[in-house]
Amino acid sequence: MLIAKVTGVVVATRKNKHLEGNRLLIVQPLDRDGKPKGNSMMAVDQGYAGFGETVLVIDEGNSARQVFNNPEIPVRTFIVGVIDRVDLE
Amino acid sequence: MLIAKVTGVVVATRKNKHLEGNRLLIVQPLDRDGKPKGNSMMAVDQGYAGFGETVLVIDEGNSARQVFNNPEIPVRTFIVGVIDRVDLE
Amino acid sequence: MLIAKVTGVVVATRKNKHLEGNRLLIVQPLDRDGKPKGNSMMAVDQGYAGFGETVLVIDEGNSARQVFNNPEIPVRTFIVGVIDRVDLE
Amino acid sequence: MLIAKVTGVVVATRKNKHLEGNRLLIVQPLDRDGKPKGNSMMAVDQGYAGFGETVLVIDEGNSARQVFNNPEIPVRTFIVGVIDRVDLE
Amino acid sequence: MLIAKVTGVVVATRKNKHLEGNRLLIVQPLDRDGKPKGNSMMAVDQGYAGFGETVLVIDEGNSARQVFNNPEIPVRTFIVGVIDRVDLE
Repeated sequence: MLIAKVTGVVVATRKNKHLEGNRLLIVQPLDRDGKPKGNSMMAVDQGYAGFGETVLVIDEGNSARQVFNNPEIPVRTFIVGVIDRVDLE
Repeated sequence: MLIAKVTGVVVATRKNKHLEGNRLLIVQPLDRDGKPKGNSMMAVDQGYAGFGETVLVIDEGNSARQVFNNPEIPVRTFIVGVIDRVDLE
Repeated sequence: MLIAKVTGVVVATRKNKHLEGNRLLIVQPLDRDGKPKGNSMMAVDQGYAGFGETVLVIDEGNSARQVFNNPEIPVRTFIVGVIDRVDLE
Repeated sequence: MLIAKVTGVVVATRKNKHLEGNRLLIVQPLDRDGKPKGNSMMAVDQGYAGFGETVLVIDEGNSARQVFNNPEIPVRTFIVGVIDRVDLE
Repeated sequence: MLIAKVTGVVVATRKNKHLEGNRLLIVQPLDRDGKPKGNSMMAVDQGYAGFGETVLVIDEGNSARQVFNNPEIPVRTFIVGVIDRVDLE
């Protein structure tokens, strides 16, 4: 699980049918100080996140099938929350 | 899940029988700006993608078994859509 | 599985309902000498860890669903113990 | 899934009993141009691959349990085919 | 799956109850030439490995639950054998 920032939206007309109706976002992982670190990835969103928001991303298929309530959805990376703030040590 | 570009086709005569009839592609992951980033990987395709196209790749075996409708297929990385465009922040 | 240090707490008001009631921590992976190495990640904690403590982190969803006793919880990274000390060769 | 070259054989007398009878190979991942890239890994082989051959490797435990037809085998990385050639763009 | 060297032992008093009775080791991944490469990780051992030995490590939770014969054990990385030698090409 990681913290990332929503930096883009993907438009894909030809795609697996189970992906229809979900937003495909590009997210940039952040380090604990809020700086970009590592490669961007694609995350599916059910409506938590807006452009530029910091989000909590999970990268696990079995969780996705539970959360999207669809055993056939080919999703592995998705957004499970919006982060208000991080309290550092 | 990641965005990648189709850059090659793999020819493999001796292979697991469940892989027969599917295309084996080489895909190069892209960063959000569309530049190559990270190592190439192999992705199985059911017919979404052509040479040079930008695709949405998922790296998860349980999803593969659902999408290929075959509980015995040894596939982990496959293509679930073709990306038309990316809208950046 | 890896050794990490708890370096922050995440506050997220809008989040998946199954995550409620658990602490969301930021952990920094450590190398065997106790030096930070690699990217920070988010880990869910059930009450093992305090700020600055060195913890044992596992990154696996099926284990999480067992440990949290909740088949629908979207958790992949979590804390399974507090490390007292490491004996090196 | 990735393309790799077989570069070594591992001899291990003390090992999990389900691993007996399978070959333990060292494989070096290759980039699309056939150059070594990234760390070597261990892959189990059922008889597809010889020394120096280029192979298709999958890194997924559930697939392994299907292909090896053994629900208890602790295998995650294994060889599913031999690559004859790669056609680049 | 990877080859690694046992370089440390972890002492953790407060931990998930299913981890009790197993040894928690620090292992350093090795490249094919036996040189350290990449980050150390934690691996659970059932009695295969001693300090300084070269071991075969698997990083997969479902295999762990089979091998440890415990569906609730939060283990992902563990030792499945001791490597006697590696024959290189």
